[in-house]
Amino acid sequence: MNLNVEDRPADLVIPDLQEILHALRAVVPEHCILFRAEQKKPYECDGLSLYRQIPMVVVLPETEEQVRGVLRACRRLNVPVVTRGAGTGLSGGAMPHAQGVLLGMAKFNRIKLIDPESAIAVVEPGVRNLAVSQAASQHGLYYAPDPSSQIACTIGGNVAENSGGVHCLKYGLTLHNVMQVRMITLDGEVLVLGGEAPDAAGPDLLSVAIGSEGMLGVVTEVVLRLLPTPGLAKVIMASFEDVEAAGDAVAAVIAAGIIPAGLEMMDQRATEMVEPFVQAGYDLNAKAILLCESDGTELEVEQEIARMQQVLSDAGATRLQVSQNEAERVRFWAGRKNAFPAAGRVSPDYYCMDGTIPRSQLARVLREIESMEQAYGLRCANVFHAGDGNLHPLILFDSNDSDEVYRADLFGAAILELCVQVGGTITGEHGVGMEKINQMCVQFQREELDAFLSVKRSFDPDGLLNPDKVIPTLARCAEYGKMHVHGGKLPFADLPRF
Amino acid sequence: MNLNVEDRPADLVIPDLQEILHALRAVVPEHCILFRAEQKKPYECDGLSLYRQIPMVVVLPETEEQVRGVLRACRRLNVPVVTRGAGTGLSGGAMPHAQGVLLGMAKFNRIKLIDPESAIAVVEPGVRNLAVSQAASQHGLYYAPDPSSQIACTIGGNVAENSGGVHCLKYGLTLHNVMQVRMITLDGEVLVLGGEAPDAAGPDLLSVAIGSEGMLGVVTEVVLRLLPTPGLAKVIMASFEDVEAAGDAVAAVIAAGIIPAGLEMMDQRATEMVEPFVQAGYDLNAKAILLCESDGTELEVEQEIARMQQVLSDAGATRLQVSQNEAERVRFWAGRKNAFPAAGRVSPDYYCMDGTIPRSQLARVLREIESMEQAYGLRCANVFHAGDGNLHPLILFDSNDSDEVYRADLFGAAILELCVQVGGTITGEHGVGMEKINQMCVQFQREELDAFLSVKRSFDPDGLLNPDKVIPTLARCAEYGKMHVHGGKLPFADLPRF
Repeated sequence: MNLNVEDRPADLVIPDLQEILHALRAVVPEHCILFRAEQKKPYECDGLSLYRQIPMVVVLPETEEQVRGVLRACRRLNVPVVTRGAGTGLSGGAMPHAQGVLLGMAKFNRIKLIDPESAIAVVEPGVRNLAVSQAASQHGLYYAPDPSSQIACTIGGNVAENSGGVHCLKYGLTLHNVMQVRMITLDGEVLVLGGEAPDAAGPDLLSVAIGSEGMLGVVTEVVLRLLPTPGLAKVIMASFEDVEAAGDAVAAVIAAGIIPAGLEMMDQRATEMVEPFVQAGYDLNAKAILLCESDGTELEVEQEIARMQQVLSDAGATRLQVSQNEAERVRFWAGRKNAFPAAGRVSPDYYCMDGTIPRSQLARVLREIESMEQAYGLRCANVFHAGDGNLHPLILFDSNDSDEVYRADLFGAAILELCVQVGGTITGEHGVGMEKINQMCVQFQREELDAFLSVKRSFDPDGLLNPDKVIPTLARCAEYGKMHVHGGKLPFADLPRF
Repeated sequence: MNLNVEDRPADLVIPDLQEILHALRAVVPEHCILFRAEQKKPYECDGLSLYRQIPMVVVLPETEEQVRGVLRACRRLNVPVVTRGAGTGLSGGAMPHAQGVLLGMAKFNRIKLIDPESAIAVVEPGVRNLAVSQAASQHGLYYAPDPSSQIACTIGGNVAENSGGVHCLKYGLTLHNVMQVRMITLDGEVLVLGGEAPDAAGPDLLSVAIGSEGMLGVVTEVVLRLLPTPGLAKVIMASFEDVEAAGDAVAAVIAAGIIPAGLEMMDQRATEMVEPFVQAGYDLNAKAILLCESDGTELEVEQEIARMQQVLSDAGATRLQVSQNEAERVRFWAGRKNAFPAAGRVSPDYYCMDGTIPRSQLARVLREIESMEQAYGLRCANVFHAGDGNLHPLILFDSNDSDEVYRADLFGAAILELCVQVGGTITGEHGVGMEKINQMCVQFQREELDAFLSVKRSFDPDGLLNPDKVIPTLARCAEYGKMHVHGGKLPFADLPRF
């Protein structure tokens, strides 16, 4: 590559607040600019509350022209820009920069079009994820990616983080359900990336924009693919006597050629935490439960549920319960989707990790996490997308106890590095943000980090967009001392060769 | 952006053959270097035989280390490099550079691993597409993307072009079925892009690598996702009295919430061309036929076939015939898959176009193509992926008649620009290559071309990898005189707003 990660621009000279305010006032109305401490406080962190930072100024533009103006002003003045959606992100991607502008996209909240014939929705980035499906429902359509935060999180944030959800095993991540974005560059230019064709012409910058975590530009419009709402959905709750058996059952379902609409695991600590809160009817005697959903026509669902029951039973399930009606199905999922808030009832704080491992490693990794609980002296509940191996360990801690904060941080890092060690990766669907920047050193080699930075620079040569996130410097990796220990690649060497 | 498309490097000073041979001999064995005219002749074009060019030298490396050496040598000597797979590509992406190295990857033909548990295959880029499914079949698995050329085309070429195929409507393009690639940069560095997680950490360079048409690096290993082979597949052949009704039937199938395993259209000119060659049993009285495939379990297929029959019948199908056994199913598809070779029986040459349009525009565009036949004095048969609106008009001409060649070229360009005009794009699955470089000016604005070039430059600052393809200069666009006429974006403005 022609750039390398140590070749970063010198520290920026940041203009003072008055200079920034003057420039912003030239491009957005006064009521869109927040600079007093009490106004800025709500923006100090996103869903990763472990790290907080008050920005220099918050701007809430109302039009695309204003976004272009803000970005041009920041470019001109060399001011860092952090873009924010609903602030539900879990990797600190929207954490403000102390000397920068926090660009909130909340006012871009219009659904511009639902077109049932083409099965697309055209929305602004501040539209809530669930609002899209609600608006599309009159046409028998919905938007498939469903982060647990879907009632609050917005499409812009989903695009920035390439968000997943329970149904992504079958229907794909945000990447697979977005057809086109309008993205404003730091120069205020409008890029229209993607389109209706399965294979857009030219380099696939749409895929780069999705999951770019605010590092390349600011999205002002998104074209979403809608899917026909399945006629029926049912979910099986399967109980297991140990986590290992549940992990093996997950592999067995997939190996049987079934791609369930959802395939989630909760361990006993998680069900015990959630049940008093949600009354989902979970089997509290089970060491782990699986939730396996089937959707489609009545006949398809009947058949798939019967096949899954057989596979789960053969894999050692001690109890199988199929949702008997829609209310029961929703209740089964309510426990899963509310697991994070429920953690708040048993612990002052929780730290939700996000890593992905090969399905074959599920049992091993869950065992190792259990032994880490002893090592770090903190409890951990496991609630996760088992079907695609995407773990969400919830580390329980008290943020008023600085030693617990420190241990939670280490525990989280250890889990991520374990994921890399077994051939997985440090993200599933939450992005890297600032949370996992050290683990990028473990996951990637210098050449790959160079390539990432090189693409980043081609959009943002001075590193103003969401600085100090996602891509670590080599200096940081050297300091972290774990540069590319395992490579984080699929462990092919260990597998029998064809 | 920080670069713009007019800011290209000055014309390269190309070293002479002896200097290149000397450098190559230092990194690859003599038998891997072809420089005599008769050795180089087979490499003068790919599947787009309209354009031919003999390269300065052909290199056929046998190891990754040799690929790294070749690329480093070319970088050092400022020599253009064009990478080639099986040479079945249809957009001229592998057409050699007169003063460059043609880097053939044919010797990278090992299937390194089929892992049934993880449902992945690890292959070298020179492995044929069909060979993957053949090797995986013993485990009940297959590789879904199936270009018509799958018996000959290789995975490396599929990755370069983001190839599609009949089954991509349901199972996605190459992009959706590749998990990881090893890519060698022009500096000889190894990048491992992607991985097993649904959302790999960092910018999504895997998606950029897939479909990058040899512009960013050379792929030496690919990890493919395998799918369980469906238990059963059946296909409906539906006859229509006019092309318009067939187009509307396609929209009706999709609107009914069905995603067929394949949904293809052939017009009467195409069936007449193919039938004597393949004896597929096509209805030669129909103005157009649709082939609609369903796959899955026996129950699923029965139910979906019944639903599709109902929808097709309601949409005006004059005859419906369901394949009664696997032999008949394969015969129905044989006609579709052999349509291109069959064209050779009725015309000395054919020019296969590739553009994508909204499904709602199918009937209109087919009508306009018909009237263009008069204007350009050439026949055109239509055989295409109707389900995703991906057209493949086959323009029939005689390459010995220079006026016919000229008119075929213009006819093709007119079809692509019509696709843009109705809100579609200039590619479906064949890539841009050199064929569609002028139409990139019609599809995109300057800002987007800038962004493409900027990413290209971050991998290849001197423009040595597959030069003069895919991304046009502004000078070229100015000369072509059609810079961004329509924008090529979904025509939202014309649709009712929500």
